[in-house]
Amino acid sequence: MLRLTLRVDKNGERWLGPGKIRLLEQIALHGSISRAGREMAMSYRRAWRLVEAMNESLGQPVVAAHPGGTGGGGATLTPAGVALIDCYREAEAEAIRAAGPALAALEAMLTH
Amino acid sequence: MLRLTLRVDKNGERWLGPGKIRLLEQIALHGSISRAGREMAMSYRRAWRLVEAMNESLGQPVVAAHPGGTGGGGATLTPAGVALIDCYREAEAEAIRAAGPALAALEAMLTH
Repeated sequence: MLRLTLRVDKNGERWLGPGKIRLLEQIALHGSISRAGREMAMSYRRAWRLVEAMNESLGQPVVAAHPGGTGGGGATLTPAGVALIDCYREAEAEAIRAAGPALAALEAMLTH
Repeated sequence: MLRLTLRVDKNGERWLGPGKIRLLEQIALHGSISRAGREMAMSYRRAWRLVEAMNESLGQPVVAAHPGGTGGGGATLTPAGVALIDCYREAEAEAIRAAGPALAALEAMLTH
């Protein structure tokens, strides 16, 4: 069973791929960067660095942190973070649709 | 400047991406696995392992080695190796075409 994944490079360097997008989706789901990181078996430090890299490339935050509170605060996506997911997932859906025949040809070459 | 790259996963694991395909293209170009590896700054050992992984997934070799001779032998792609490149590059071209508008939307979100 083959599945296509997109990586978007910026000026020849890795910029955006399934890892960062899934992290954003997990943050939206759990309302917490640390919890999202745990779900993906990554440290808070690493999760935060990925978020920072996205913030920097967009020139604005993709995640808004809400510190404090009895629950230890939380995090939500900003409109920019939501838009980033939307555009990436749309690119992915279109790519999967269009590459279908070529992907089927690759699948047919496999032994299993 | 954004550029799309495809990774094809098989049964949830990385199978084929730009690295392996470029390695095959370099082998075709230079007629040598070690030279192809050098062009990509990877050891012969690593280049050979990537070739072996492709051989195994297809159940047939993607590269034919021609040992011996004064030039130290060489390597050429098999028809299966050529077909693998063709299918991957076709999938990539179709994906890039189809994902164009969504990619342009991502590009518009960038600060530079």
